[in-house]
Amino acid sequence: MNSLFKSSYRAFTNIALIKYWGKRHEDLFLPLTSSLSLTLDAFYTDTTVEFKPNAKADVFILDGVQQGVELTQKVSQFVDLFRETAGMNMPVTVTSINHVPTAAGLASSASAFAALASACNGALGLGLDNRALSIYARQGSGSATRSLFGGFVVWHKGEGEDSQSSYAEAIDDAEWDIGMLVVIINQQQKKISSRVGMAHTRDTSPFYAMWPSEVEKDLAAIIPAIEAHDFETVGEIAEHNAMKMHASILASNPSFTYFEPDSLVAMAIVKELREQGIACYVTMDAGPNVKVIGRLSEMDQIIARFKHDFKADQLIVAKPGSAPIELKA
Amino acid sequence: MNSLFKSSYRAFTNIALIKYWGKRHEDLFLPLTSSLSLTLDAFYTDTTVEFKPNAKADVFILDGVQQGVELTQKVSQFVDLFRETAGMNMPVTVTSINHVPTAAGLASSASAFAALASACNGALGLGLDNRALSIYARQGSGSATRSLFGGFVVWHKGEGEDSQSSYAEAIDDAEWDIGMLVVIINQQQKKISSRVGMAHTRDTSPFYAMWPSEVEKDLAAIIPAIEAHDFETVGEIAEHNAMKMHASILASNPSFTYFEPDSLVAMAIVKELREQGIACYVTMDAGPNVKVIGRLSEMDQIIARFKHDFKADQLIVAKPGSAPIELKA
Repeated sequence: MNSLFKSSYRAFTNIALIKYWGKRHEDLFLPLTSSLSLTLDAFYTDTTVEFKPNAKADVFILDGVQQGVELTQKVSQFVDLFRETAGMNMPVTVTSINHVPTAAGLASSASAFAALASACNGALGLGLDNRALSIYARQGSGSATRSLFGGFVVWHKGEGEDSQSSYAEAIDDAEWDIGMLVVIINQQQKKISSRVGMAHTRDTSPFYAMWPSEVEKDLAAIIPAIEAHDFETVGEIAEHNAMKMHASILASNPSFTYFEPDSLVAMAIVKELREQGIACYVTMDAGPNVKVIGRLSEMDQIIARFKHDFKADQLIVAKPGSAPIELKA
Repeated sequence: MNSLFKSSYRAFTNIALIKYWGKRHEDLFLPLTSSLSLTLDAFYTDTTVEFKPNAKADVFILDGVQQGVELTQKVSQFVDLFRETAGMNMPVTVTSINHVPTAAGLASSASAFAALASACNGALGLGLDNRALSIYARQGSGSATRSLFGGFVVWHKGEGEDSQSSYAEAIDDAEWDIGMLVVIINQQQKKISSRVGMAHTRDTSPFYAMWPSEVEKDLAAIIPAIEAHDFETVGEIAEHNAMKMHASILASNPSFTYFEPDSLVAMAIVKELREQGIACYVTMDAGPNVKVIGRLSEMDQIIARFKHDFKADQLIVAKPGSAPIELKA
């Protein structure tokens, strides 16, 4: 039961198989390319939004701690998009709990803005569908666009400066033998945010010029493979796409990499497993963690091998997740 | 004093600052791009060539051990180039000692074929100059082309199928404040030879299409920087060129990398040193070892930092080396 002006949603994070790396329009949050992801059940954000007519200011409580000016302002600006749509200006209290291991370095912003968008929509009774909400979520964090849907999700890059044309849609419910093992690598060096890393790659890497056409080719090839439930083709395309992203990053000037020593250890294990006949593939994002795309039916064997080199609490199995779900009080 | 038909030479290895990565003609050993290297004094091969009219067959003794059919045949075929030039067919005994740490994974083929070419020339009294010898050496190992000269050396890619147009020449004696720290990383996985790695990259990496034009740009920029003794510009261009090569490799399909965990540790140390105001730069070849381009005057500080993470016997300082030198009996 939700009160008036109050709503709670759980949204799940997602991992891109065809990566989003670079904006074509910073202010409108429009990406240079389309991308494709798998929503994961293991990592999510629970968010309650309550609009309070008599409150004096917006409040943002994250994991039980009231946040300072900077983060609260980012939330306020995002909620403004919904307040403008609703034609009102009530202060809001946003209460979020991130169910993402802090050390994981996994993008919690995807689930965070997807949950926030869903809860704003619920609290204000706007009745927007998930496609419309994905356009809102995009303006909080690009990857959040894809967390408005479950399973395999395409985020369309859209046309020109038309914000409404860049939205997400589900293409397959992923209810087949596929999942991920997230291998959490401890950070050993300062993180370069994806925002900064994308801009540096776009501005200084000669190979980035080829990135958009590579994404187009990879998307055109992976979508039919997903529809055919062709696990190995999906994995091969995803791994190659991720490595091309990291190659474009490595070719930046000055060069940098998100790889850390243990990332290479995990990548070598995946090659070793493949040589042993267990098909599994690597994807990586703007951090050192390695996500292993595997068959859920073979996850026990994959984990057993990883336990030789990693601790059990560094290994998290994630199944495909759903679109955001409403949390009843 | 050299006997008739006998000659001994020492040739030094070299490390490319602008990389050779890919052939345009396999049979003629013609490279897709020009490249540029620094010859190093710390790693070399001593080779004695003796033509023996009464011997029955070619013999190849490496580090005191007579070699089997395969390696001996490779040496024989190389020596054939000189026997043909001299218009004779005497059997040869080649005795080589590699002064390159075995674990180093450093290309000993560069110094090996440069020494062999020089000694063949001496033993047969052909009187070929180093430029001519660099064309012979190329047909043993591409990088050997550059070891016929000291200091900074350009290997010209040449024109079309004209073998004579692809030779090396020295551009600067490197008698200024520049050298390398070679950080020897233990091999943790099977090595992919540069020959195989080059071909796989050329055939499957989308970014390789941009490699030749990047090399052209980097060469055009680094040569004046070398002539101006502008250490930082030389280092920046060399590091970026090496990372573009490794990026093109990473983007291969299936992807692979020569980086190993400790390579990343060494690369992170170089970034840390730069942040502390010690200019130094990374280059890497078809293996996990990291070569740190540094000022010889700052090498003690660079080594001191590396000793926190590496053992003393993994760290070898190399100064610029010379063209091959004749060894008198």
